[in-house]
Amino acid sequence: MVNYFSSDFKLAILGGGQLGKMMLYETRKYDIHTLVLDPSEEAPCKISCNYFEQGDLMDYDTVLNFGRKADVVTFEIEGVNIAALKQLESEGIKTFPSAETLEKIQNKAVQKEFYKTNNIPTADFEVFQSLDDLKNSVANGKTKIPFVWKSATGGYDGMGVSVIKNTEDLNDLSAGECIAENLVPFKNELAVIVARNPSGEMKTYPVVEMEFHPTANQVEYVICPARIDDKVAEKARKLAKNVSEAFNHVGLLAVEMFQTKDDEILVNEVAPRPHNSGHYSIEGSYTNQFEQQIRAILDLPLGNTDSKVGGIMVNLVGAEGHEGEVVYENIEEIMKLDGVTPHIYGKKLTRPFRKMGHVTIVDKDLTKARKVAEKVKNSIKVISKNK
Amino acid sequence: MVNYFSSDFKLAILGGGQLGKMMLYETRKYDIHTLVLDPSEEAPCKISCNYFEQGDLMDYDTVLNFGRKADVVTFEIEGVNIAALKQLESEGIKTFPSAETLEKIQNKAVQKEFYKTNNIPTADFEVFQSLDDLKNSVANGKTKIPFVWKSATGGYDGMGVSVIKNTEDLNDLSAGECIAENLVPFKNELAVIVARNPSGEMKTYPVVEMEFHPTANQVEYVICPARIDDKVAEKARKLAKNVSEAFNHVGLLAVEMFQTKDDEILVNEVAPRPHNSGHYSIEGSYTNQFEQQIRAILDLPLGNTDSKVGGIMVNLVGAEGHEGEVVYENIEEIMKLDGVTPHIYGKKLTRPFRKMGHVTIVDKDLTKARKVAEKVKNSIKVISKNK
Repeated sequence: MVNYFSSDFKLAILGGGQLGKMMLYETRKYDIHTLVLDPSEEAPCKISCNYFEQGDLMDYDTVLNFGRKADVVTFEIEGVNIAALKQLESEGIKTFPSAETLEKIQNKAVQKEFYKTNNIPTADFEVFQSLDDLKNSVANGKTKIPFVWKSATGGYDGMGVSVIKNTEDLNDLSAGECIAENLVPFKNELAVIVARNPSGEMKTYPVVEMEFHPTANQVEYVICPARIDDKVAEKARKLAKNVSEAFNHVGLLAVEMFQTKDDEILVNEVAPRPHNSGHYSIEGSYTNQFEQQIRAILDLPLGNTDSKVGGIMVNLVGAEGHEGEVVYENIEEIMKLDGVTPHIYGKKLTRPFRKMGHVTIVDKDLTKARKVAEKVKNSIKVISKNK
Repeated sequence: MVNYFSSDFKLAILGGGQLGKMMLYETRKYDIHTLVLDPSEEAPCKISCNYFEQGDLMDYDTVLNFGRKADVVTFEIEGVNIAALKQLESEGIKTFPSAETLEKIQNKAVQKEFYKTNNIPTADFEVFQSLDDLKNSVANGKTKIPFVWKSATGGYDGMGVSVIKNTEDLNDLSAGECIAENLVPFKNELAVIVARNPSGEMKTYPVVEMEFHPTANQVEYVICPARIDDKVAEKARKLAKNVSEAFNHVGLLAVEMFQTKDDEILVNEVAPRPHNSGHYSIEGSYTNQFEQQIRAILDLPLGNTDSKVGGIMVNLVGAEGHEGEVVYENIEEIMKLDGVTPHIYGKKLTRPFRKMGHVTIVDKDLTKARKVAEKVKNSIKVISKNK
């Protein structure tokens, strides 16, 4: 057994954003030595890792040379150089999730084909090598509007996804490889986080539910546990396990799913890392997702994924019309409410829709937490000092 | 209202040990800029603060010049230069707890006199300017053996406290100012943490209980909530509040108490900072003690002090006969148990009885947690690589 605690063992993390930052709370708790690579000198991870390096995550040499300094390599963002990960693996440096797994996930067209090959239920789709190919297919009536367009690469936080309702909508899209996916009429958007370690031990977190704004098509609350039938929840957790096993995934895998009108569960997409839908776990769960990620990739025993209390998460995104030095308006107001914890990621500058933090609301009574969450949502504002 | 979050506001922390380290999880969560001063270049706080300085906490100029870099100054250890704090306050830099409050606590003789003056129930005691004075008082029959000897200054983690059962015991003591305190026959040793902010808002945490080893006179478990009568608990929390108000204390005050055979509550001593008896709160409480400390000293609203689940804390101290590079034997074994979280402080070298970390055990059922705690206690060992 490797000695990870207060030892010479070194863990490298590719990416130094908020997910890495929250992962570092856990490496600090275990006193695990960490190295972080990020393109920004102002990355939220810069302090509280043992070694920080500024560099391009997509550059082969940068990732290779950085990874060589460590015993195990992981990432908090999918956009990393896979060839470098493969080279590191061939040199005996463990990378979790593996390069092979990441390769199947990084490109959404490949990811969707993988579901098809592995009999994992997912919405029907077609792959196009370019936007022009898609436009032709629409023009000749083969691809029917409406559909969901997804860029094969580079999507993040809702970027690279668009619902196409008419041919004009096709003009705003990026030119590269893409998917056209059937619009699924769904009751609920759900997510399950699966943890799996190299020994094959596997645990799922409870199903969470994304609650959308009644008119704007935007997730307002992530709610754990999802307010769904127990049988549907069980089905979703089972499916998430199957997905993790199919990928031979090590670490955390966040599986986003649709619950259709007929209570079918379809996999939408996955993220091979801690995920926004698991942030509630810091305050809500016996083992939060970041600690679980560390346990999983280091082949330590997985922790209890049950919740201590009901949890709801609200994202803090930059308000429209505000750009510049950030101010969290009314943060003192929300801190007066029981069970409310703001997380501030540490980005100095806000801009519209930038993810600046999140707020968790916990309570033994989920209905009560939901009411408090609404108060939080309606009072805190992420604005700029000088509008 | 001051803007603390991702702003230019600076918080200075005197002391960079494990308490500071756990406080930094919270300043990171809120993205509050921190400066830490500690005599050791290997202080657990060294990474994850924004600025670290090596220096003597008892040196006037060092503390003064360090404090001048910040807007608010706090400490995680009582042994800091009070004159420097006073000078900082006169220059308009806030220090919480205040220099005046710390002065009443730092010296145990002064602290005990303070209780007497303020009608706070405490064990009877006498103050002696030196060990020789005490010896004379014993010799002429004025001070009766047995009693508890406490050094007025410099005590920490059970150091500087000794039960005197015969005149020979007097020979092992340090020479300076001390107290002789009546031995209180107590049922339970309890503690209550009080949080108080500059606006006077005040909250108490539930009463915790120290469970002793049945034969060795050593605390084995800190248990929250204490397994005592509700009325006694209420009395203890009320007394703790009175103590905090009497000191005009700002921040966290840990009040250690005895529950006598007649259910009287006597104050033993206080610590004006986060405390070992509150470590369970990281996993157990809605607001952990370190977040509460930050809220209190920055005059933010205090968080809910209730527990989500029952919590038990076990200290990880260096095993006897082991000195050198630390290894946490069987840590993987305890991580298999539900609700178990090890905290490793990050000290590279172990020595007998050195505080190296702690383990929290939480469960909705406290009796179950207590059983798991015993398993933890009996399996993990803090040893050295090369014995």
